[in-house]
Amino acid sequence: MKPIIAIQTDFGVGGGSTVHGTCLKVDPELEVYEISHSIEKFNIKAAARSLHHIVPFWPEGTVFVSVIDPGVGTSRRASVALLNNGSYVVTPDNGTLTLLLDNPGVKAVRTIDETVNRLKGTEKVSIFHGRDLFAYCAARLASGIIDYEGVGPEYPVDEIVRYPQAGWSVSRGRAEGTVTGIMRTFGNLETSIPVSAAEEAGLLPDSDVRVVISSVSGTVYDSSVPYRPSFGWVPKGEEVLYNGSDGVLGIGINLGSFAERYGIVPSDQLTVTVAKEQ
Amino acid sequence: MKPIIAIQTDFGVGGGSTVHGTCLKVDPELEVYEISHSIEKFNIKAAARSLHHIVPFWPEGTVFVSVIDPGVGTSRRASVALLNNGSYVVTPDNGTLTLLLDNPGVKAVRTIDETVNRLKGTEKVSIFHGRDLFAYCAARLASGIIDYEGVGPEYPVDEIVRYPQAGWSVSRGRAEGTVTGIMRTFGNLETSIPVSAAEEAGLLPDSDVRVVISSVSGTVYDSSVPYRPSFGWVPKGEEVLYNGSDGVLGIGINLGSFAERYGIVPSDQLTVTVAKEQ
Amino acid sequence: MKPIIAIQTDFGVGGGSTVHGTCLKVDPELEVYEISHSIEKFNIKAAARSLHHIVPFWPEGTVFVSVIDPGVGTSRRASVALLNNGSYVVTPDNGTLTLLLDNPGVKAVRTIDETVNRLKGTEKVSIFHGRDLFAYCAARLASGIIDYEGVGPEYPVDEIVRYPQAGWSVSRGRAEGTVTGIMRTFGNLETSIPVSAAEEAGLLPDSDVRVVISSVSGTVYDSSVPYRPSFGWVPKGEEVLYNGSDGVLGIGINLGSFAERYGIVPSDQLTVTVAKEQ
Repeated sequence: MKPIIAIQTDFGVGGGSTVHGTCLKVDPELEVYEISHSIEKFNIKAAARSLHHIVPFWPEGTVFVSVIDPGVGTSRRASVALLNNGSYVVTPDNGTLTLLLDNPGVKAVRTIDETVNRLKGTEKVSIFHGRDLFAYCAARLASGIIDYEGVGPEYPVDEIVRYPQAGWSVSRGRAEGTVTGIMRTFGNLETSIPVSAAEEAGLLPDSDVRVVISSVSGTVYDSSVPYRPSFGWVPKGEEVLYNGSDGVLGIGINLGSFAERYGIVPSDQLTVTVAKEQ
Repeated sequence: MKPIIAIQTDFGVGGGSTVHGTCLKVDPELEVYEISHSIEKFNIKAAARSLHHIVPFWPEGTVFVSVIDPGVGTSRRASVALLNNGSYVVTPDNGTLTLLLDNPGVKAVRTIDETVNRLKGTEKVSIFHGRDLFAYCAARLASGIIDYEGVGPEYPVDEIVRYPQAGWSVSRGRAEGTVTGIMRTFGNLETSIPVSAAEEAGLLPDSDVRVVISSVSGTVYDSSVPYRPSFGWVPKGEEVLYNGSDGVLGIGINLGSFAERYGIVPSDQLTVTVAKEQ
Repeated sequence: MKPIIAIQTDFGVGGGSTVHGTCLKVDPELEVYEISHSIEKFNIKAAARSLHHIVPFWPEGTVFVSVIDPGVGTSRRASVALLNNGSYVVTPDNGTLTLLLDNPGVKAVRTIDETVNRLKGTEKVSIFHGRDLFAYCAARLASGIIDYEGVGPEYPVDEIVRYPQAGWSVSRGRAEGTVTGIMRTFGNLETSIPVSAAEEAGLLPDSDVRVVISSVSGTVYDSSVPYRPSFGWVPKGEEVLYNGSDGVLGIGINLGSFAERYGIVPSDQLTVTVAKEQ
């Protein structure tokens, strides 16, 4: 059975149709899945977080295509990374691979040889590498027309572009990190603090926890919050600290939006502290 | 051929990728279809209406997954219903099954045994049952790893949670009901009045019909409206009563939005009367 | 292998589920792809442009279904066109086929015989031909239940409804055309001027080009713009003329939206002139 191709872009709703068709034109037997075309426009970190979130839940060997590519048509590398779990990521090498370098890890990376792995007839078009280069190359790889060596020349994994990551720290009774994202639709915050760090700090499930969120200009939020398994464990409209689905702490409101209540937007730079109540 | 899995949630655009992947990780040969992730947030009645609308048009044996789950992580039952047409619905038992109880009817219902049918490694996560429990269990069922008995213990169909339904009545020359929804994008109203009730009341296709819409605080709309096969049978911008695609009466505007013109929003509680013009 | 069915509508997000299911109920082995349900409501030209953009990138033999149908339920023809590349388009004959008539060209066209190719039990419903007629007929064709002759009676290709098309002209050092669309999400303009016309006019890649955009009431934009392979070849926030992915000239802003900066909306009637700088 051929590996499935799974695609994410910032092209907007309906933006994937020629990308999808191009894969099927290479090999009509391929399965192509469109993860989302609604990654925030030009937001490489959002692309990286999405992949990091998704990759572990897909079969090993999946060929991911990620096209959030503010530098399309310029000299950034067009690459295919082979992950430690056997899956591939076809993407501009512009930071998108940052989080995957740590988990599950990148075993090798190659530049796409455009003389071979670019859709014929598109040489005069430089704005649609998602279709003409990334999807086309992914389809050739998934269908077995080329093997991984056939992608193009290898380059050192430590040359992969990475952006500085949100860190976290833990001390007795206390863990610190940052807000890494706002969950779309529901408006709860994702943090960089692993559940294991909360455990190490001695925060007990079902206890109340001090949560402080700060921006450079001051405190945005400071409250005692119940640490519970999920939203429904607190009354409607109340705030809750919980173990998020990616293994990090999250902060939300039962049947409401935390981000909306406190006017938090994705571009905010926020730190978070969670600490045992005295 | 294995049955297809068809999923609806309120996770928002792009929210289905790990749910989808989880199914394929159980069995890469499964077909998974994402109906929509744009069911109104926390709206159990919208989930029920959507399923009721969709189920008859899908092959018998389809495994539906519906995750509109305001009580995620609490004690509501996680269930799999077997419908009279042989299809399954994997869902929190929170009212979502209400309309299916009448049509096509529910033959049996079982609670999901989490010790068996929950994705391993997610025991510390209580907020993402859509992925870890519902989709995972659906994939095991669709792939044949478990049979229906393998889902978990059966419970009586009459314990299924149901919400009070919109009724309708018919008398000579007149039928009454409620507005049950607003069709997205086009803005026409769906009513609870079956086409057969209109027939019983003696309303004639191609006649004009008195339509009165009322809220608790008074009349919202009162007009003579042409009863026609479709929008295009009246001039642009004019109102029309028609037989909707689910076998109930609908009210709309040719090339316009009825809901917008009269400021009607989904949360309005509205009754509708349709009557022969005197 | 059976041809894939690819569907576009203006039903809105989530609007394709019964259409999709209806195809699978005809034949569970069919592959159905939903291009988009977000074509602008009632916009036949947008439907035509989308198909024209997509068809060349899909396998020959694909059965396209396009349901942007402001005249649903009225006397417009419900048709299946056979294209010169072997693909089919199932659509109301209301202008949607206009651009395909030129490229790749239409070999034959037939009216759908509703007595045979309409979903049984939907005779009283006139508002959902997307499901009951177009998708149902497409599924019968794709599955091989009927052949092309089985669709219904043929009619002359020159009776196909077409709308007046955006033209272009070229003279020494200069090409003229119109703005044909705004690329969703990114906000760059698509023009009717082919790349070949720019070549014929002697506009040199990597030169600067005079771009003038006008409405009936005056000049909207008049500037010297770098003609480059893609956005990233100009600094952030600067404007750029480029070869678009459909073989026509495009105008955009690197990491910004041209349409937003100049307040251009899809309904604007705009002409564009590109000329060598003196």
